[in-house]
Amino acid sequence: MKKSISILSLVVLFFLSCKKSDTVTSPTENKQTETTATSGDPLPSWNDGALKKDIIAYVEKVTKEGSPDFIPVEDRIATFDNDGTLWAEKPYVQELFAFYRVKKMVEANPALAQKQPFKAVVEKDKAFFEKGGDKALIELVAATHTGMTEDEFEASTKEFFAGAQYPGKNVPLKQIRYQPQLELLNYLRANGFKTFIVTGGTIELVRAISADFYGIPKDQVVGTSFKYKFDDAKNAVLREPALDHFNDKEGKPVGIQLHIGQRPVFACGNEGGAGDLAMLRYSSGSKYPSFQLIVNHNDSIREYNYQEKDNLSLNTAAKYKYHVISMKDDWKKIFPDK
Amino acid sequence: MKKSISILSLVVLFFLSCKKSDTVTSPTENKQTETTATSGDPLPSWNDGALKKDIIAYVEKVTKEGSPDFIPVEDRIATFDNDGTLWAEKPYVQELFAFYRVKKMVEANPALAQKQPFKAVVEKDKAFFEKGGDKALIELVAATHTGMTEDEFEASTKEFFAGAQYPGKNVPLKQIRYQPQLELLNYLRANGFKTFIVTGGTIELVRAISADFYGIPKDQVVGTSFKYKFDDAKNAVLREPALDHFNDKEGKPVGIQLHIGQRPVFACGNEGGAGDLAMLRYSSGSKYPSFQLIVNHNDSIREYNYQEKDNLSLNTAAKYKYHVISMKDDWKKIFPDK
Repeated sequence: MKKSISILSLVVLFFLSCKKSDTVTSPTENKQTETTATSGDPLPSWNDGALKKDIIAYVEKVTKEGSPDFIPVEDRIATFDNDGTLWAEKPYVQELFAFYRVKKMVEANPALAQKQPFKAVVEKDKAFFEKGGDKALIELVAATHTGMTEDEFEASTKEFFAGAQYPGKNVPLKQIRYQPQLELLNYLRANGFKTFIVTGGTIELVRAISADFYGIPKDQVVGTSFKYKFDDAKNAVLREPALDHFNDKEGKPVGIQLHIGQRPVFACGNEGGAGDLAMLRYSSGSKYPSFQLIVNHNDSIREYNYQEKDNLSLNTAAKYKYHVISMKDDWKKIFPDK
Repeated sequence: MKKSISILSLVVLFFLSCKKSDTVTSPTENKQTETTATSGDPLPSWNDGALKKDIIAYVEKVTKEGSPDFIPVEDRIATFDNDGTLWAEKPYVQELFAFYRVKKMVEANPALAQKQPFKAVVEKDKAFFEKGGDKALIELVAATHTGMTEDEFEASTKEFFAGAQYPGKNVPLKQIRYQPQLELLNYLRANGFKTFIVTGGTIELVRAISADFYGIPKDQVVGTSFKYKFDDAKNAVLREPALDHFNDKEGKPVGIQLHIGQRPVFACGNEGGAGDLAMLRYSSGSKYPSFQLIVNHNDSIREYNYQEKDNLSLNTAAKYKYHVISMKDDWKKIFPDK
């Protein structure tokens, strides 16, 4: 039952994020040159200010041998949420993928277009999902993401990412990454940090692009997972239509323990769905000096402007003294040029 | 129910391995100098022969750029079982740890010594576990490995490894590692392979020593895990008395998919409990040239001599042309000097 609710939350999240924002500008409007971290400034797309100074001061103090704040390399674990933290989440890429899968499946088997819940997707009948109840939604995720081998799933993600464009922007998905975060990842790695993605999205979808988009290997992605089963005759791992782990909220420290085995000393999430608070709190319990960071989506011109109704993430950040990124003020540039 | 059976299998395995072998020799009897892989020969503790030649030929062909056999660095995934593959398994270290925990818990609460299943451990009453049924065994594992935070569990593993000696040998546990395998791990890493431990043992116990013993970071250990729960008030991950994943046999490809996200191209296990066959088979399905290796414990003088009753692992190796390590013939030296 709990699993059903989790699948439902996941799907509801997809659909709630369907509303297109009219405040999005094309990344081609960001005329500044894309710079890399090879110059003197490791974070060229970050505006000079207190936050940038704090990040650099933290990294310098914990990597200085002999300092009381020194963190051994093997314990320099940095975790980043993905949706809304490393790339845009309006809409979720996961949702685009689910729709893509429906399209492909209907092409292969046109009769599906007459069957719910495929019919509703084909006909863009959002009301069906809003009102249709758990069953249809769970069936949609199960039908589009499971019931195949991992090799088949991987092939379908490759196809999807090769052709997908982001709605409203009409750019490849690589261009909805946040340039300042790419620099931050590079900067941390250059200082001996091991960088992980800890996403509420499904783990293999993110693994499909983690190395190419973020320089993060597949095994350093922690995410929502389905139940797997090894089939000796096929010599393949099958993904079954049942959720194994929902990697959001309290699920994030659990996923971190299972995959990483230790607390991150640097953790970064975003406000919007309060999905990263448990990860940030877990990080703050490290025995080492730690750094917590939250992206605040307050840039209606260059990205989006959205806040939680109860402001939970920002209130929690204030309570525990987490650092908050004001996209509007702290980021010189939002998206990379390519 | 399935979970109970799995816990039972785990515990039964512990206890079945209790019989002390009288064929063990002290590693101090291995007089050869401990060498490292820095000389011309990357595998100095391996005897020259067909197997050593095959390993080196494989590594050379898949790392040669432009060759049709070339494997990109990000896909050079090597997985090693631990018990009986990287260190001795007679008895399992996991079993020593469970006994150590009982001792500690009884010291802290002497009344436990009168309570089963602690009483049976304190009084070395093996018959109790052989005859006592599931309940007592499951209670023992639950009581000794769970019901605490991950930080507390980690502290207890540190204490254990600092003092533990291997029965029959009276050496620290570091000296039951296999020197030739340490060289093989180093050799693979020097050639761009990412090395993982994929163990039937519990994940955190192996993580406690993976970096120090094998040069493998915590997040590159895949193992049997309990259910976790994040407790916000304590800001800690709690381990609950329920198995989440039993990482043996068909569980190994599942653990690999979840943690690594791709098939290993190099996989090494051992015969003895047929626990590694699914992992080796999964590896053999790689789209790249792959290498499967099984340790055959046939060295009654320097290590142990034990085979599966049905010879399943060695028969499967012959069927699929996996490589077999004859400890007696292929390894010049078994244990490191320190």
